[in-house]
Formats: sequence, C-alpha cells, structure tokens
Amino acid sequence: MNNPLKRRFAQKQKATLSWLLIPSAFTAESMAQTGFDGLIVDMQHGVQDYQSMVACFQALHAHPVARLARVPANEAGIIGKTLDAGAHGIICPMIGSEAEAEALVRAAKYPPRGTRSNGPVRAGLYTYGPSSYQATANDETLVIAMIETKQGVDNIDDILAVPGIDSIYVGPTDLGFSMGLPPILDREEPEILAIYAHLLKRSAAAGVVAGIHVATPAYARRMLDMGFLWTSIGADVAYMTAAAKVAAAC
Amino acid sequence: MNNPLKRRFAQKQKATLSWLLIPSAFTAESMAQTGFDGLIVDMQHGVQDYQSMVACFQALHAHPVARLARVPANEAGIIGKTLDAGAHGIICPMIGSEAEAEALVRAAKYPPRGTRSNGPVRAGLYTYGPSSYQATANDETLVIAMIETKQGVDNIDDILAVPGIDSIYVGPTDLGFSMGLPPILDREEPEILAIYAHLLKRSAAAGVVAGIHVATPAYARRMLDMGFLWTSIGADVAYMTAAAKVAAAC
Amino acid sequence: MNNPLKRRFAQKQKATLSWLLIPSAFTAESMAQTGFDGLIVDMQHGVQDYQSMVACFQALHAHPVARLARVPANEAGIIGKTLDAGAHGIICPMIGSEAEAEALVRAAKYPPRGTRSNGPVRAGLYTYGPSSYQATANDETLVIAMIETKQGVDNIDDILAVPGIDSIYVGPTDLGFSMGLPPILDREEPEILAIYAHLLKRSAAAGVVAGIHVATPAYARRMLDMGFLWTSIGADVAYMTAAAKVAAAC
Amino acid sequence: MNNPLKRRFAQKQKATLSWLLIPSAFTAESMAQTGFDGLIVDMQHGVQDYQSMVACFQALHAHPVARLARVPANEAGIIGKTLDAGAHGIICPMIGSEAEAEALVRAAKYPPRGTRSNGPVRAGLYTYGPSSYQATANDETLVIAMIETKQGVDNIDDILAVPGIDSIYVGPTDLGFSMGLPPILDREEPEILAIYAHLLKRSAAAGVVAGIHVATPAYARRMLDMGFLWTSIGADVAYMTAAAKVAAAC
Amino acid sequence: MNNPLKRRFAQKQKATLSWLLIPSAFTAESMAQTGFDGLIVDMQHGVQDYQSMVACFQALHAHPVARLARVPANEAGIIGKTLDAGAHGIICPMIGSEAEAEALVRAAKYPPRGTRSNGPVRAGLYTYGPSSYQATANDETLVIAMIETKQGVDNIDDILAVPGIDSIYVGPTDLGFSMGLPPILDREEPEILAIYAHLLKRSAAAGVVAGIHVATPAYARRMLDMGFLWTSIGADVAYMTAAAKVAAAC
Amino acid sequence: MNNPLKRRFAQKQKATLSWLLIPSAFTAESMAQTGFDGLIVDMQHGVQDYQSMVACFQALHAHPVARLARVPANEAGIIGKTLDAGAHGIICPMIGSEAEAEALVRAAKYPPRGTRSNGPVRAGLYTYGPSSYQATANDETLVIAMIETKQGVDNIDDILAVPGIDSIYVGPTDLGFSMGLPPILDREEPEILAIYAHLLKRSAAAGVVAGIHVATPAYARRMLDMGFLWTSIGADVAYMTAAAKVAAAC
Repeated sequence: MNNPLKRRFAQKQKATLSWLLIPSAFTAESMAQTGFDGLIVDMQHGVQDYQSMVACFQALHAHPVARLARVPANEAGIIGKTLDAGAHGIICPMIGSEAEAEALVRAAKYPPRGTRSNGPVRAGLYTYGPSSYQATANDETLVIAMIETKQGVDNIDDILAVPGIDSIYVGPTDLGFSMGLPPILDREEPEILAIYAHLLKRSAAAGVVAGIHVATPAYARRMLDMGFLWTSIGADVAYMTAAAKVAAAC
Repeated sequence: MNNPLKRRFAQKQKATLSWLLIPSAFTAESMAQTGFDGLIVDMQHGVQDYQSMVACFQALHAHPVARLARVPANEAGIIGKTLDAGAHGIICPMIGSEAEAEALVRAAKYPPRGTRSNGPVRAGLYTYGPSSYQATANDETLVIAMIETKQGVDNIDDILAVPGIDSIYVGPTDLGFSMGLPPILDREEPEILAIYAHLLKRSAAAGVVAGIHVATPAYARRMLDMGFLWTSIGADVAYMTAAAKVAAAC
Repeated sequence: MNNPLKRRFAQKQKATLSWLLIPSAFTAESMAQTGFDGLIVDMQHGVQDYQSMVACFQALHAHPVARLARVPANEAGIIGKTLDAGAHGIICPMIGSEAEAEALVRAAKYPPRGTRSNGPVRAGLYTYGPSSYQATANDETLVIAMIETKQGVDNIDDILAVPGIDSIYVGPTDLGFSMGLPPILDREEPEILAIYAHLLKRSAAAGVVAGIHVATPAYARRMLDMGFLWTSIGADVAYMTAAAKVAAAC
Repeated sequence: MNNPLKRRFAQKQKATLSWLLIPSAFTAESMAQTGFDGLIVDMQHGVQDYQSMVACFQALHAHPVARLARVPANEAGIIGKTLDAGAHGIICPMIGSEAEAEALVRAAKYPPRGTRSNGPVRAGLYTYGPSSYQATANDETLVIAMIETKQGVDNIDDILAVPGIDSIYVGPTDLGFSMGLPPILDREEPEILAIYAHLLKRSAAAGVVAGIHVATPAYARRMLDMGFLWTSIGADVAYMTAAAKVAAAC
Repeated sequence: MNNPLKRRFAQKQKATLSWLLIPSAFTAESMAQTGFDGLIVDMQHGVQDYQSMVACFQALHAHPVARLARVPANEAGIIGKTLDAGAHGIICPMIGSEAEAEALVRAAKYPPRGTRSNGPVRAGLYTYGPSSYQATANDETLVIAMIETKQGVDNIDDILAVPGIDSIYVGPTDLGFSMGLPPILDREEPEILAIYAHLLKRSAAAGVVAGIHVATPAYARRMLDMGFLWTSIGADVAYMTAAAKVAAAC
Repeated sequence: MNNPLKRRFAQKQKATLSWLLIPSAFTAESMAQTGFDGLIVDMQHGVQDYQSMVACFQALHAHPVARLARVPANEAGIIGKTLDAGAHGIICPMIGSEAEAEALVRAAKYPPRGTRSNGPVRAGLYTYGPSSYQATANDETLVIAMIETKQGVDNIDDILAVPGIDSIYVGPTDLGFSMGLPPILDREEPEILAIYAHLLKRSAAAGVVAGIHVATPAYARRMLDMGFLWTSIGADVAYMTAAAKVAAAC
C-alpha cells in the first residue's frame, strides 16, 4: 500500500492531520515539514479551489505526508478531479444518509464499485512499480465521510454500512449548529460527548475508522484516548495568526 | 500625514513590524489583524514578486497597518513600481555607500529631489482630500536603507547624510556574514553589539530613525531599550511553522 | 447592521449597483471609487470564478461599497464559499419556483433556518465588535432571487413567500428570451412593462425589495420612479469599451 | 456558419482533434499551430478549470482551429460558462440516457430550445457581421455527447433522438471499464469493435456525427475508415513526454 | 512588412494608440476591438509585469492591432523578454542621452546592429511565410524612445542620430515635472508647446517619427495637426472609471 | 554533496539536460519523469518568470532531477532570488569577460567569496542533516557561464580563471549570430567546430566542465564524444509540438 495514511489506519496507528486553507504551494510545503501525518486542502471553507489544490499537492509530493482534500459538496465532478490530481483521500462534508454515502463512494471509485471516470492525469504520473494506478486506486484511496449533522448521527449505521467508507470524521461546529448549539470546537456538552461515544462504538462495530477535528493538542490527546484513531488540529492560517499575535503584543 | 508609520516615527513612537514572505493576499490580510504597526512584503528573499506585492497591498488596504516592501536590488524600475503600487515605504537591501543611498533616494522621490517617473497607478487612487498624491508623495513615503555589511557600517555617516533617508535598518544575518560570522539573528557578539551602539549614536546625531530585524519579542524589547525606534519580528511563514510544529508534536 | 446595502434597503433608500465582469482586483478597487452603492462579482456570465471573486472582495474591502456575487447556479457548494469569502449578499440566477427559492435560502443561512456549513474563513476575519460572525450572519447577509423567466413570474407569489428572500431582481434579457422576445435591456414592450408592474405590486405586498438590471442611467431613473428600490447599471468592461470607442474614433 | 468544425461536419469532411490538458495559454497557442482541426480543453481530467480554459481560448483565437471544452459534469452552470467563454463546442462526459442528453442540450441552447442564460461575455465579443451572437448561437455551437458506458450504448437510440445532439463521441477507456475490461485505448476486443460498428450504424441512421478518441495515428486512420467522421489523438502533455523520453534516452 | 504600426509610420499615416494598465487578457482583447491602431502594455506604471504582458499579447493576437509594451527601465533583460514575447514595438521611458538611446537599440536588435540574444519563444511562433523571424526582426520591430525630461530635450539631436530609433514619444507629465511644473497632460504652457515644436522640427529633420501621450481626443487632434504622427489617448482603467462615474451619479 | 548534477560533474559522469520554457508546474513534473539528469527553467527566453520558476521547482522537488534556471541577465537581484528558491544551479547568459564572470560568481556565493544576501526561503527548507544550508551552499550550487559570443570566446581563459565558475555552456545560436552566421543549432561550420575544440581544450586545462546546447540526440552524442561532459537537448514545448505535428498529419 502506497497511501501512507491508509497504511497507518490499516495498522491501527494513530495519526494527526491538519488543514491547508491558504491557497499557496509555499505554505503547503512548509506545513509538510512540521510533522503532521497528513494535510487536507480545504476546498469547502478554505481559500482553495481546484487549481490551488493541484499546486498544494505538487508541493506536498516531495514529503512523506498524506495528501487529502475536502470537496465543497458531494458532487462527482469535483470528486473525480480531486482524485485525478493525486489525492490520497477525499473528505466529503455533511454526509447525512446512506444515499449520500453511496453517492460519495460511487464518485470516488472506478467500476465495478463506482462510476469514477478514467483519466488520472496527475495521479497516474506517480504510480511506480508493476501495477498501474487504475488497478490499485480503488484499494489505495481513502473515502472519508464527515458526520456533522443530527441527521448524520441518526443515520450513522446506514452510513457505516456503505462499502468503501474508510473513515467517519466528526465536524464539531456544524454538529453543534445542527443541534441548536453554538458552532464551537473542543466541546464539553455531555450530549455531544455522548454522541462522540456513540459514533465511536458504532464505527468500531462496523470496522470503520473514526476521526475528529479539534482546536488544541490537549483536546486531541483526549479524543485519541477516547477512541478516535485520528484527529486534525488547527489550520495553517490559524497557526500563523496565533503565533503572530503573541509576537505583535510584545 | 497619511503614512501611519512615518507619523509614528515623527512622534518618536516605537513600532513593531513583521514580514510577508508568502505570496498570498489572504495571509496578508490575516497578518494585518494580528497587531503589527507595519508589514513588509519581501521581494528580495520572500516568495514574492511585483504582482504578489500588489495583491498583498490590496488586501492590507482595509486595515490600519503601514504597507512596506523590500526590493530585490537598488534598481529604479522596481522602486518606482513599488511606490506606484501604493507602498508607504521602500526598504532597500545592502546599502553600502553614499552613492548607493543617493541612488535609492533619487529613485524613490519625484523631482526636484529625485527622478521618480510620474504614474502612481494604485497609489494615486487613494489620495483623498485636496492635495494630489504627486504633491505630497515626497513627504509621505518612507525610504529605509538596510545597513547589513561591514561597508555600510564603515560608511554610515556618509549614508546618513543623504537627504531623504528616513531610517536605517539593521540586517543582522548579512552583517554577521560580511564580518566572517555565521548568519544568525538576535546576536550576542560584543563586536556586533558595539556596532549597533555605534549605528544608534550616529543615526541619532543625524536625526535619522534606526530599526533592526529580530527573531523574538524578548530581543525586540532589548533592542527598543537600547535605542532602536522600531523592530521587525519574524515572518508569516515562520509563525505558521513554529506553531504548527508544536501542535504536530502533540 | 454592518451590511451597507441591507441597511439601505431597511431604510427604503434607493441604491445603484454595477457589475464586475473583469477578473481583476485592480479593476474592482477602481470601480469601488466611482460612486456605486454595491458591486456584484459575476461568476455566472463574467470572466470570474471563486479565486477571482476573493481577489475582488479583498480589493473592495477598503471601500464603503457593498460586496455581492452572482453564483453560476443554485448550488449549496458555491453559495457557501461565496458567503465564507465575505459577500454581503448572494444573487442567484433563474429562480423559478418556491422549491428553488427555498433551496437558495437554505444554502445561504446557518441553522436553524438553513443548512449552511460553518467555516467563514474570510467573512469571520471581519466581524468587529462583541457579536461573532456566525451569530449575526443570518440577519446580515442579503439573499437575492433573480426573476428572469416566465416561470419565475408565474410563481412570483410562492417565491416571495419563502422566508429569507430579501429582494427579487429582474433580469430583462433572459425574461424576454423566455417569452420569445430578443434578449435586450431597457425594454419598452407593454407586456414586459406590465410584468414589471406586477412584480413590483406583488413584492411590495410581500414586503420584499425589488431591483432590476438596466443599461442606462436614464432607464434606471425611470425604473426607480416606477417603484424599484434599486438598479444595477452596466458593467466594468462595458464602461471601458464604451468610453474607449469614443476616444478611438477621434 | 462561423464554427469551423461544424462546417466540416456539415460537409462530411473528416477532422482530427486533440486535447489540451496543460493549463497554459502558451501550450494552447503552440498546439494550435501543429495542424489539428480542433483542440479540446479538458476540464474533466486535464489540469484545467474555467480560468485556464478562458486563457487557452484567448490564445487559440488567432488561429483557424475549433475551440472545444469538456465539462467535468453535466451541469448547467459550467456548460453556460464554457459557451459564454467562446467555445465552438461542448463535450459532455458519461451521457447514459435520453434525460441526460436532453439536460445537456437544454443547458447548451438558448430559448426556445433550451434554458441557457443570456450573457455571452467573451463569445459575444467575436460576432462579426450583421447577426448577433444570440441569434445564431443555437445553430453555431456543437453539442457532443460522450458514449462511454454500457448504459450509454444500451440507450443509444434514445440519446441520438434528442434534438440538438450534433455528435456522439466514444470514450474507449471508460467504456471498457464499465464492461469489466481494462481502461485502455485503441482496443481490439471483438465485442468492443462490434459496439463501435453498432454506434456508427445507429448514429448514421439518426443523422448524427460520430467521433472517437484514439492513441495513435494508425488507429485513427482505421477508425476513420470504419466510419467515424472524426477522431481525437493524444494530448499535449502526452506528446511532450513521449518525445522527451526518446531524447533523454539518447 | 508585417508590423501594422511600422507600416503606418512608413506610409506617414496617422495613428492613435492607447494603454493597457489592467493585468488582464480579457480587458486587452476588449480594448483591441474599440478601434485603436495599437495598444501598449505598461510594465512601468501599469499593474503589469512580464506574465501579464504575455497574456495580453496572446489575447491581442487575434486582432489587427499593434502590440507594444513599455519596459520599466532601460535594461536588456526585460527588453529581450518583451520582444521574445511577440511585441511589435518597445517603448523605453526616460531616454536622456545618446548612450541611453544606443543601449536601448542594442538591447532591441539582433547582431550585427545589437546584442539581443536569440530565442524568440512566442515571437517566432508567428512568423508565417518564407522568412524566419530572426531574419526580419531588426527591420520589423519598432524602437520608441520616450522624451520626458529636460535632459532628453537638451540631447534630442544626439538621441535622434542613433540608428534604430524609429520614433520619439513625448511624456508630458514627467517632462513638466523635470522642469519644475506640475505633472499634467494636455499642457498649455508656452514653453512646453515650444519644446513640442522643437522636438517635431528636429525629429522631422532626422527622419524620425514623433508621438505624444494625451488625455483627450480634442488635444490629440491638436497634436496631430501640430505635426505629431501619432498619439496615445488615455488608458483602459481611465476609460472604465470615467464612464462608470457618470453612470453612478445618475 | 546533495546536488545531483554537481556530483555527476565531480565524478566525470556525462549528463543530459533539457529546458522548461512552459510556465507550468504540471509540465515540469511531467518532464521530470522522462529521464533527464537536470531541467533548466528558462527565465531568459522561456515564458517564465520568478513565480513560475518557483512553481516548477516545487513540482520538480519530488524527483531525482537537478533543478537549474537561466536568469534573464547578469543581475544580483534575480540570481539571489533564484538560489533562494532552491536552484541547484544558475546559468547566466552572455558571459563575455572576466568582470562579468566575477560579478556572476559574487552574486551567487555567500561571503567571503561573494556578496549573496542571506535568506534562503525555499532552499533552506530542504537542508536535511547536520549542516545548515548557508554552511554548504557555496560548495553545493553550480555556477554556469554561457559562452555564446565572439567576445566570450576571445576572453575564455580569463573567464575560466574566475574561481567559482563550475562549467561553461555553449550557446550555438547566439555564438553564430555574433560571428555573422545564422542563429542555428547543431552547427557544421569548420570555424565553429574549431571554436568548440578550443573551448574544450581551454576548459579542460582550467579544470572546468563544458556543456553545449543541441537540437538532436545524434548531435548530442557527437558532442559528448568530442569532449563535452554534458548537453542539453531541446525543450518541453519543442518536444510537444514536434510530436503533435506528426500525429496531426496522420
């Protein structure tokens, strides 16, 4: 397996990721050398689009870090383009039902599992060895469904049952929002923590990995202890401004 | 006076600046809200060129922060373009002689003081009030000469005597390099600190402001106490990677 | 209320907007100083996409002009990205039914009214004061439905009844096209003017603002007199070529 | 008729096209002078998006070559933007049913045939002569449906019956994929060749042109002999790497 | 002769040019259709650099308009790159002496007249016919020296005597500036008009064309009547804002 | 030694390079996998500038190919920026004298050998191991002087004597041009071949490597046999168009 994050998941090794919101190959390659196991180009909420994602992926390529991207919506067009650009994994926001999870997997996988169209223009450049990219892509690429609405929680078993979903990934701000709570991270509400426990239990039962987005390393450790196999912590621009504010206040 | 940094200097108010090395308007506007008095687009060592500087300046415009840029070399073409793009100030590297300082000022000032060509394409957009940009630009724009070689130190009085040099600015890594020392910041060598004291004394005598680049807030405070009116601390990408490494090591 | 255009609408003040079709922050900031109350980045028919819209918004930010964008289609992904980028308002083309209007509002509003996902990457940078962006966004952002088909006219009452539609906006060329007439602006056909009168009457009854796109200031004044609260006149590239042709013909 | 490729098709003249996968106006204008009858900007699998397509179209404009683009999905938003940008033709992937073909045509044609929205921002710049762009666009623009799934083959008669489909276009790799075969070009499997013959027979009966993508000139000639009116051969980046490998191996 | 402007000059036909300050191929191609004989990409004062100039030239290529560029300074590197990019002519600012004029011509001409380096990467793409680009470039390309300082006026005969200077071009704002006058266009000062007359007389005697930049068509006509063979009027962004202000004030 | 090309040169291993004229990271990474030992971003004659060079270098980074760039002129500003961007080597055109060679080396080397300013923004990211970039850069980076004028040939011994010139590199088209011959590659004129022999003899005597640019593999082999240690063959865009023309002529 060439996907470094999928390999970690297969070996039940914990992982820490972060987000790339800045549309810059230079910040991407700089973040690639800070120690994260994977970096996620955020085309949903980041200042990113397809071309800036390609530039970030090109800059990440020299480094042993997994390349992921979050698509802005569950649409086959951009999912295919993201994988063709060489993503190790796709993160899709707002998965709320079996149908949505199935659509995601179908868009991300070649036949016979899915309907992804052939043409791995960058991805295919980087398949070394005897197997072609197309022969191994369905096994190599990660498909990650964000659970971040009450609906997603309610339908979690149906979602987890869709073949090809490698991991669920909790989005705490939207999850809170959908339940009438403020959109914050690193939550302490008992009903939210109960949901996290429920999601961990059901995903474990289904043999699916679970991850969660957090704001701080301390909360990340707590979530790993709770049973999540991976977390994402912060984002490029958040790291920059947090440290800059400290210096500017000197 | 509309130049917020020149106004601070005129009032002997201390200032803290930082550097923009990332070619991104998004990081520029994010840095603009972290509390610095000024931000410097680095076309010499940053991943910046003329177009990325314009984008950064456009993004900085909404914020009460001074916009400066360092040019890659002491050339009239890029100095004029930088001012036309709306810079509050020009920083020129490696000023080593009176002739170089004079060339810098001539490139940065309209006649009769200099030979800057007319055409303030962005700068002129933003001159509100009864006076035109061209009538006030020579008074408004800051011209800052980097002293970062042994030659520059040796010729400091001649450089300070050039009318139109608003500030000298010490570059500790190149200064060390030119003296056979390693290219580090926040230096402790007595001979270097003696040079700093000498530069402060001579610039004070000449009525010219002095600034210095530092790595840490603690050293910045020390330099301000020593007599520098302003410091620049760190850079966008350095803040980002420093904070990200802490999180990734969780 | 921080949205300058929504404030005007709330106070029943007339407004004049225009369009940004050129993918350039420089033309955006130049247009921002010509006197319009708002400028609309056109991702449907202009040479604009997400990244050029961000650049235009960054350049507009220093100026007291409302920032709007027209999305290419009624899709939640791009609507969310546009608002995250700091739009004061969204214009959606071709709204023809209550379901389409409802989908538009749901994509544009946070829970509980809608399903917009949390992550206001640029928008959140610019919320000064005690309230957070997420707490006020549903009240601040404008949602504008284009009525530009026979279907939209037929279903106008259903569309106006959707909570969250702040304004309708007439697109005369497409409206004519859908009725078998040529795609022109500043129309004189009695049946079209009767439709305008009908739309004004129904929107007034529903307490919804009405706007219209026009080609000339004279027709704009006529439409304001007829009852439209706002107009958009022309576009950046149209102004440029019209004036250039006059000069070139000298 | 101003569309050079539609004119060729009307006169039953064979045509050879190729693909632009590189997001560069410079490679586009270079390819434009190599002798192809048309060039296709690939927004589905190429490293292309809307803005890079516009740049390629601008560079192609000086040359007597047809400008086409493949959209990433059958969505009205991007189809309209592509035509507004001045495309002579739209290629839509994965057309599998009459409904999909009808949606494609409706998105690509102005009323009354379709629902394309008015605003041909670049396309309208280039209509010389007495007729306006809008009056002739429905006749001038090519709509090309890719047949590249088993479903598309099964529904070929329904697809061909949709008024406004100018040509079908066979995608051999996806077609093979959908039938459980490897995704290769220039296929020799008898069942595939039988499908080609069937598609040629049905399209001829329907009066619709047929094209196919191939890897080599030799296979292109064979397909033209078999009855296809046009082929596309290779792609910019493929030509570059093939020739470079030969030289590098010297 | 393939250079449309040099052909006009050779035939003593008057010409009207304008400026491209906006870094956009879309505004360039739009300006190309407004009726000017030539358009000048301004890398000195416009928001333009090498890459935006290339994009503008690519967009201009489809139109029968001469492509020129003003370089930011009299440097061989950028002069060569501009010609390699396909410029019909080079405009160099601030020519004040025979040595500067000679340096300009040497940078712009291949051996034996000059020292331009071979490698016409775009320019060479567009040489149709039996002669190669390199064989005809020295005859085809226009070299235009701006006379816009007192020094340039004083040395006009020496400058005009340099073989290869095709035209002088008066910059009224800088000329005024260098004489202690405000930097305005369309000047009425008798001493300035006397300079214009002198420049026209000396250039006519030397067989060199003369042009001048103006703000209005009326002044352009006056200058043509006075003896200038060509004028440039206004600029893209100036046309846009002038017309937009009129509409916004409705 | 981490520079793969300098290591080859040290071991007297032959090398084959090629040129990147297309401003695209995608073509750069594609060329990186075709088998060349090094790739040269051409900022002199290619459609390249600083930012496109950075993008190409980022894309090359994942591949075991040396990264070089040719600067447009012998200027310290761009030489420093190129090395800061991570170049393994600098190629400077038109070196004609000892003074020019010395200026080149001084711009490319840190003190004490030269005056390169400290700030290796990308280059410093990639120094693994115990030594810092600044400590090894003077030894690692290649400085290559193009000999492509009669003057350069005449002064070859003086040029070769400048410490820090790693290789000379013959530019046949400009060399021919400067001698009154047409600007062609793969030359057969006896006087040119005699110059090549002379350059090989003198550079061997000086212990300096010699390379040459050629058009075809056959001529490359001939030059290697003649004594050149390395050649560059063709360029990205040339490979693309050559192969495309063959296919289009099918």
